Amino acid sequence: MTHTPLRFGLIGTGRIGQVHAASIAADPDAVLSWVADPFVDGAQRVAATYGGTATDNADEIFASGAVDAVLVASPTATHVDLIAQAIDAGIPVLCEKPIDLDIARVDALRPKVAAAGVPVALGFNRRFDPSFASARARVAAGEIGALEQLTIISRDPSAPPASYVGVSGGIFRDMTIHDFDMARFFLPEIVEVSAVGTTTFDDGAREHGDFDTAVTTLRAASGAIVTIVNSRHSSVGYDQRIEAFGGRGVLHVANAPSSLVSLSTADAVEAKPPYEQFFLERYAVAYAAELREFIKLARGEASTSPTFEDGRAALVLADAAQRSATERVIVPVALG
Amino acid sequence: MTHTPLRFGLIGTGRIGQVHAASIAADPDAVLSWVADPFVDGAQRVAATYGGTATDNADEIFASGAVDAVLVASPTATHVDLIAQAIDAGIPVLCEKPIDLDIARVDALRPKVAAAGVPVALGFNRRFDPSFASARARVAAGEIGALEQLTIISRDPSAPPASYVGVSGGIFRDMTIHDFDMARFFLPEIVEVSAVGTTTFDDGAREHGDFDTAVTTLRAASGAIVTIVNSRHSSVGYDQRIEAFGGRGVLHVANAPSSLVSLSTADAVEAKPPYEQFFLERYAVAYAAELREFIKLARGEASTSPTFEDGRAALVLADAAQRSATERVIVPVALG
Amino acid sequence: MTHTPLRFGLIGTGRIGQVHAASIAADPDAVLSWVADPFVDGAQRVAATYGGTATDNADEIFASGAVDAVLVASPTATHVDLIAQAIDAGIPVLCEKPIDLDIARVDALRPKVAAAGVPVALGFNRRFDPSFASARARVAAGEIGALEQLTIISRDPSAPPASYVGVSGGIFRDMTIHDFDMARFFLPEIVEVSAVGTTTFDDGAREHGDFDTAVTTLRAASGAIVTIVNSRHSSVGYDQRIEAFGGRGVLHVANAPSSLVSLSTADAVEAKPPYEQFFLERYAVAYAAELREFIKLARGEASTSPTFEDGRAALVLADAAQRSATERVIVPVALG
Amino acid sequence: MTHTPLRFGLIGTGRIGQVHAASIAADPDAVLSWVADPFVDGAQRVAATYGGTATDNADEIFASGAVDAVLVASPTATHVDLIAQAIDAGIPVLCEKPIDLDIARVDALRPKVAAAGVPVALGFNRRFDPSFASARARVAAGEIGALEQLTIISRDPSAPPASYVGVSGGIFRDMTIHDFDMARFFLPEIVEVSAVGTTTFDDGAREHGDFDTAVTTLRAASGAIVTIVNSRHSSVGYDQRIEAFGGRGVLHVANAPSSLVSLSTADAVEAKPPYEQFFLERYAVAYAAELREFIKLARGEASTSPTFEDGRAALVLADAAQRSATERVIVPVALG
Repeated sequence: MTHTPLRFGLIGTGRIGQVHAASIAADPDAVLSWVADPFVDGAQRVAATYGGTATDNADEIFASGAVDAVLVASPTATHVDLIAQAIDAGIPVLCEKPIDLDIARVDALRPKVAAAGVPVALGFNRRFDPSFASARARVAAGEIGALEQLTIISRDPSAPPASYVGVSGGIFRDMTIHDFDMARFFLPEIVEVSAVGTTTFDDGAREHGDFDTAVTTLRAASGAIVTIVNSRHSSVGYDQRIEAFGGRGVLHVANAPSSLVSLSTADAVEAKPPYEQFFLERYAVAYAAELREFIKLARGEASTSPTFEDGRAALVLADAAQRSATERVIVPVALG
Repeated sequence: MTHTPLRFGLIGTGRIGQVHAASIAADPDAVLSWVADPFVDGAQRVAATYGGTATDNADEIFASGAVDAVLVASPTATHVDLIAQAIDAGIPVLCEKPIDLDIARVDALRPKVAAAGVPVALGFNRRFDPSFASARARVAAGEIGALEQLTIISRDPSAPPASYVGVSGGIFRDMTIHDFDMARFFLPEIVEVSAVGTTTFDDGAREHGDFDTAVTTLRAASGAIVTIVNSRHSSVGYDQRIEAFGGRGVLHVANAPSSLVSLSTADAVEAKPPYEQFFLERYAVAYAAELREFIKLARGEASTSPTFEDGRAALVLADAAQRSATERVIVPVALG
Repeated sequence: MTHTPLRFGLIGTGRIGQVHAASIAADPDAVLSWVADPFVDGAQRVAATYGGTATDNADEIFASGAVDAVLVASPTATHVDLIAQAIDAGIPVLCEKPIDLDIARVDALRPKVAAAGVPVALGFNRRFDPSFASARARVAAGEIGALEQLTIISRDPSAPPASYVGVSGGIFRDMTIHDFDMARFFLPEIVEVSAVGTTTFDDGAREHGDFDTAVTTLRAASGAIVTIVNSRHSSVGYDQRIEAFGGRGVLHVANAPSSLVSLSTADAVEAKPPYEQFFLERYAVAYAAELREFIKLARGEASTSPTFEDGRAALVLADAAQRSATERVIVPVALG
Repeated sequence: MTHTPLRFGLIGTGRIGQVHAASIAADPDAVLSWVADPFVDGAQRVAATYGGTATDNADEIFASGAVDAVLVASPTATHVDLIAQAIDAGIPVLCEKPIDLDIARVDALRPKVAAAGVPVALGFNRRFDPSFASARARVAAGEIGALEQLTIISRDPSAPPASYVGVSGGIFRDMTIHDFDMARFFLPEIVEVSAVGTTTFDDGAREHGDFDTAVTTLRAASGAIVTIVNSRHSSVGYDQRIEAFGGRGVLHVANAPSSLVSLSTADAVEAKPPYEQFFLERYAVAYAAELREFIKLARGEASTSPTFEDGRAALVLADAAQRSATERVIVPVALG
């Protein structure tokens, strides 16, 4: 099957935008046509490296008539408007998570997305990690029997700057949101949320009334229980593990080794180097796979890209966790 | 330091009673003097194997004047009275967990224990597992910095008979109680309990309104969060793991390998045999260490034996978890 | 099947003799009746702890008419005479390895052993390690297809005193002899030996013309190749691993963990404590199993105890390795 | 430091030639200018994908005046002449291993290489594997004390076709040659070679008088011993491990996991998927690093590229191993 490469407009050229630019340039089915960023220097640098025309105004992309798909990697507050603009222009869009920090704005956009025939995908990159995807496929294939417990350990290497914490929407909407989507990747029907959050080490979290440490439990309609263990720091590096426990077996996803070398001495044996440093390294392959799957979606082919509804569901769970952790109640949820 | 061996009276000769009888016989500082069980055949078999005089009436032991310590391994409902009897007789007592399923009965006994100078120890054997004990000592020594998250995975090989479930007091009082004590081994000051329980596979649990699957989160006064993941079954064998996550590092306690052999084939590599089958095998060394520590306590020496108060605290946490899981509320607790 | 316990005479009460005394005392089918050691204090201490009559003269044991089996744990130079004496007395004997350092003396004894109906077993304890035994049984059952390569890593924690090196017979006869037997446990028909030895760290070895580091390759009649990697020291503790490589899979036997705890920090992750310190700890279970198997042999039951011929074969291989390493030739051997 | 990209001429477009073409295209400091292969279709396909002018005649490359470096990935028999041609043209050359199967031809070329100022590098890609390179650097830094034993396990997934075996030069020159270079990467001064080879499963090897299974031991001038365990097949996938044993510790390089997922069931726990399938996957990163290092060499910068002398030394060791394995002698070597 040969195709003309999909012409991409990239909006936002921060750290994650650059990752997407590189993925687009490396994918034989994609080409970078336009790059927008209000800080036009960034757009120009990305365009110089990976191709395309730079602009400081995303409107130009939609008006160009020269893009087949848009990739939104701009600040969260711009996502809702850019998705709406893409729908209006009839251009498939892959938007970074979260859709928005405010569920009201998400719900306001929801009918438009549902009515439009335009593909809208959410950037939950972890679904495309080969190991997580394999574990989920093996669970779905019945290899471990009924899934009874899903345990997600998810810890970032170090806490973000206090200034970021203040606008992040809180740990559940900013960080756990990936884990909520991972929970739903295995168990879509979550019916109840309980969360506990504490602040044990990060002054930024303390200053902004946020948590740096949290544990969330989710109950699925099937009776399965999901446990999410989060921390904003991890001295050993990026900590991303999953254990799927079923009636007939258990699947574990381990951390990615940063090297194959281990050291044994009189003090300790089989000691390995610390894990991959952060998400760009850990999920490099996943970002490329995410793009390939979105290209299928944009072309109208069968695709497993996470949807707008997946993005909304993760935010509903994050809101419920935030409420549970602050009001000390257990919160029923209806994702339908 | 040489001592006359401590003369033990053993009450109860079921599975766990036999373990203690063997430990007493093997310990150079202990000797089995009396063995009581209403099913006197059991008492006689144990006495024939490990020494001592058999009786069907525990009163004889207290009246004998020939025991220096009593080990209570009889059914839970008898524990409170036997502890009281031991105190009245001035005989140090090591009692299997739990003290009782009813906190009111425990609290009624509490002042007597506090007032008596007689040592009362609780049989929380896992504290004496060399690996758990080492992990806790290393945490206490500051090796991983401040303890921020403690994750306990605790799954039994298979669900007990429905008849047992009916009188067990429920999964939290019967099974998680060990994990509550382990939580307090690392973090004594627990201030809040939240639990979710479901019934996903066990008809016995369903019949008796119990859970077969549960996750409990505990908040410690320090801000640390404990997560306890429980299941009444585990196809891979007895699953007993702990992860202590601190600001400067992480300590993991793995499952005990049942063999050093692993197999690699075209289907899978480094596959190991399933884990140790159950607590008698997994904690064999711990039971012996528990006894040695109790002997020190009985002799008035410095000892780390868990106390009556530890036994009571575990039950308070179990009651709170039961209430949280059934009423869907988060429950503050005061253990003082 | 009930039996009268076998009455053992133990000859030699050094470190390994004490291990056997404890095994005899712990085995319900064995009882320690006599204990001999020219240093009669040692004999008396062992007898006081584990039972039996102490003597400074092993002849008394043979004359007593009160032993059903003899366990020889005395210095190597006495083994041949004691085996002969046991045969003359018609008493089954379990003799520590090696039979002798001089193959001529072994061959002189050989016809007597062959002619006598008296069971003679050799103390190759590692065959009874549950993990090695399991690996060998699985190979024999065809689980990995034809066995093509057997790799044995065998390193002692630290070099013996120079005085011991001088009388040890050299690394191949003293240390590798266990590995030669392990090789033959998997592949009895060895036809060729090649060895290289060097002296890299141990002054004792240098002084006595011995090696502290050696690698031996054996060719089996089947075409399989055995590799034995030895060192007289190992900073990480006793290093005892085997890899059996077959056409359809690989079985690995790992070192025994001394704890289930691992530590992860910013410097290194999953670091475990060093291995078990030495053979008494590593092979504790194996010594007990070795004794049980010998008891079967002594009773005329089916038994897998290593034989005199096994002991001789290991020495033949050790001699060939010594010659290969010193004369720099490859040495064909005929074990028949 | 900015440079004009190095213009490469690639000679040979088989499997390994294509790998190099991709590396050249991906490296910002390199550009593919010419591609030669007598099967000009191959050259054209590579040029179409990665750039450059295709030809069926390598002479055109040397005559073009438009290449700054040559990469030789043609059949072994052509290597000597192409290196000579590159030297005559004054063009730095990176040549795949081995230089030739005949040491006489290598030695005939040797003075020319030594006299010329033209950089000649050999394609021992494994030196550039990040894990092997890290292990070697840590050994060199003294992290494990003096290196006493180096154990290399190196097994290919499956035996090559019989037709290839017939022209391969035999297992030592074709396959072990990589391990000989790895041995010298850690211990350059090898003074003695002993090898045993057998044929246990491969009819192709049997037909051509070659071995499919081999173990080689090397003695280094320092007294360190290298053991190389080879097989032409491995049911678990490409098996590439190293253990560097020193006086103060041990460094292990494990196989590369093909996934982070492991499965635990009632049959087996912690079972992982088989290893990476073969050298293109396992050493993908190494090929790119090898190229970067050669670019430095070609530019006259400090470089760790393996040299012509390294290529010759590996062949000397292979010849010695071949002689040892066939004549059953231990062979001293002088690499100087």
